[in-house]
Amino acid sequence: METHKQLTIGLFGFGVVGEGLYKVLQQTPSLKASIKKVCIKHSGKKRNAPETLFTTDRNEILNDPDINVVVEVIDDSKAAFDIVSTALKNGKDVVSASKKMIAENLKALLALQEQTGHSFLYESAACASIPVIRNLEEYYDNDLLHSIKAIVNGSTNFILTKMFEEKLDFKQALLLAQQQGFAESDPRLDVDGFDAVNKWTFLLTHAYGITASPENILFNGIQNIQGGDAIVAKSKDQQIKLVAQAKKLQNGKVAAFVLPQFVKQNDHLAFVKNEYNGVVIESGFADKQFFYGKGAGSFPTASAVLSDISALRYQYKYEYKKLYHHKPHELGDDFFLRVYISFDDLRFIPKEKFEWIEEWYAQEARKYLVGVISFEELKKNSWWKENNTSLILAADPLIEEVETRKLKKKSLELAGVL
Amino acid sequence: METHKQLTIGLFGFGVVGEGLYKVLQQTPSLKASIKKVCIKHSGKKRNAPETLFTTDRNEILNDPDINVVVEVIDDSKAAFDIVSTALKNGKDVVSASKKMIAENLKALLALQEQTGHSFLYESAACASIPVIRNLEEYYDNDLLHSIKAIVNGSTNFILTKMFEEKLDFKQALLLAQQQGFAESDPRLDVDGFDAVNKWTFLLTHAYGITASPENILFNGIQNIQGGDAIVAKSKDQQIKLVAQAKKLQNGKVAAFVLPQFVKQNDHLAFVKNEYNGVVIESGFADKQFFYGKGAGSFPTASAVLSDISALRYQYKYEYKKLYHHKPHELGDDFFLRVYISFDDLRFIPKEKFEWIEEWYAQEARKYLVGVISFEELKKNSWWKENNTSLILAADPLIEEVETRKLKKKSLELAGVL
Repeated sequence: METHKQLTIGLFGFGVVGEGLYKVLQQTPSLKASIKKVCIKHSGKKRNAPETLFTTDRNEILNDPDINVVVEVIDDSKAAFDIVSTALKNGKDVVSASKKMIAENLKALLALQEQTGHSFLYESAACASIPVIRNLEEYYDNDLLHSIKAIVNGSTNFILTKMFEEKLDFKQALLLAQQQGFAESDPRLDVDGFDAVNKWTFLLTHAYGITASPENILFNGIQNIQGGDAIVAKSKDQQIKLVAQAKKLQNGKVAAFVLPQFVKQNDHLAFVKNEYNGVVIESGFADKQFFYGKGAGSFPTASAVLSDISALRYQYKYEYKKLYHHKPHELGDDFFLRVYISFDDLRFIPKEKFEWIEEWYAQEARKYLVGVISFEELKKNSWWKENNTSLILAADPLIEEVETRKLKKKSLELAGVL
Repeated sequence: METHKQLTIGLFGFGVVGEGLYKVLQQTPSLKASIKKVCIKHSGKKRNAPETLFTTDRNEILNDPDINVVVEVIDDSKAAFDIVSTALKNGKDVVSASKKMIAENLKALLALQEQTGHSFLYESAACASIPVIRNLEEYYDNDLLHSIKAIVNGSTNFILTKMFEEKLDFKQALLLAQQQGFAESDPRLDVDGFDAVNKWTFLLTHAYGITASPENILFNGIQNIQGGDAIVAKSKDQQIKLVAQAKKLQNGKVAAFVLPQFVKQNDHLAFVKNEYNGVVIESGFADKQFFYGKGAGSFPTASAVLSDISALRYQYKYEYKKLYHHKPHELGDDFFLRVYISFDDLRFIPKEKFEWIEEWYAQEARKYLVGVISFEELKKNSWWKENNTSLILAADPLIEEVETRKLKKKSLELAGVL
């Protein structure tokens, strides 16, 4: 029986996740991990732990040579980056749950890990307790990962589920999500897709060695989706999900985006309802694996933080194999998407931008079309999210063949449809 | 960009998996893995590869110092063990898909890995392409793995699905499985539960450090399940699955068994239909993760073999952390199970062996009861699989509390029910 590294932890944040961690570590001495100090923002609050455990001075943790692990579960991403980078520089391993901070400082954090040689683990930052980072990092080799698509935001998935199953409109569903604790009082971070694209940023690093900023990845949230769109989905026997997706293109680059998408009932992601997350990985031999679990909430987050802590006992660190051991992939824009667009007024839709249009529907109040458009057009212009326009990708939206499109366009023009 | 180990592979077996592997490795030079020699049983068959690639002499691979990786995808478990052990001793890393061979020779294979220091990977041997071994080994720490339950046999799951959804009886469903290639012509290995318990044997090693023989684990297959049982399941809004299960008991030991089980519709395993496999892991903070994918077939198997091969480029090996780095867990018998038993004749049912009985149903042709019985009783005696008796665990069958049982029994006796 080998002996393991004894972990002495400095914890930042004592909300539900922090307090839960403290309790579990106390009850599980075999983990050989104990919390020496907890740094909080406001002293004086009544807390379920001895008062001597707490400090408001971050240096009491960051400068304590006894503390070899810093766990950071705070909300403020600027402060979090400061804590994480100082801790790494001061010779500590770090566990973090701050997706926004990681996405926004990805390159700096990669450099810090290289410089210091210390572990920086953040499994809880994406899909909470689903071990997606670990599996992308360790199991799905560069050459074997054909595509990955995922529901990475529990709040928006809860809202979409309620719009779909209970025929609520967006505002009613959002209110319900807030009442049940699945959305913040300022829900924009979730609803507009920022949280999802933040997570997708560093999942792309572990999947393909891509180190992009969130603003370089095309994304949108579900803020423009209307009850009518859910009815269209239902009529096609499909659902609408906010899907983060990436796929290797034939030219070796990687297509990546986070957009609402129609999902067929036999798609694994259709199983993912309410606040759950799910990941579908297509690997060698075109075989698909599906990972599923709660994507938000204190227990799933704490569960993943705990797994990261326990991995530190074995000196585990991310190797970023796809980035350092291979030629990292680049993002590619040279592909097309099949999209559904619903709108109030045709004037706002530049229909000449479409390669071809496959479906039209119009009634007085609301209209929609289904057509094929280049990814570059969506990236360059924003008409598709303005003027009450709602863009939802069709099921299996990605089209690589560019040759046939001219022909198809012509045939429709000749037929007088366009 | 680091350089990796160049893999020169000797392959045993050239069925669908072997041939598929050969093609993919040829098409993916970036994997830096090439097959130098393929050992087959019968020469002379026409094969889609150059004739010089093949040999019927295993020593042409096992004694070739150029070959540093042996991949073994053959059917004969005795020959497979011989190949694997010789290859390890001769300084080669080994990838195997032979679950029966691994289960039956687990301790010898563990010893061989320790002696030789070489890698022996077998992700494809359980749940095919679902990376369950890797996740148990790397992600779910000893102290954090509360329970694991899984559908690990695709053939039986296919048969049960058809009995349930298409109201076929067992024999009709088995025939359909054979016609569609999901069951062998001699289906006993799958149907009687041998295949499932074989897989469970080494999954328990990676989950809890348990090194038991298949014969030490209580198991049964689905051979006694009748159409009427499926109807009962349906009336309770449940399904029947062959579930492999393990759970840490309060006394620190591990309960483990492979038995048919009623599964509620909201159980993740209810989602697993036809030839698919699924794994539900309950980890720290009682959070559940679900892994899902195809459990059988040439592509899923080849996909997992390919992932193992690619991991050898990084010198990956199983550390068996739960076995060597912790005090390994032991199997425990001190618990009770809630069971459903259907039968033709009450004479064959020793009703005094039950702690208590909760439900009776009788009609002329077929009767059933639901009751609580000690695990030890099921382990010691076999009346529950004889005389056309069918035992199916109730949903959430495991009961640890033994104190209340006497009282409950008495109260039923007093009430004149027993």
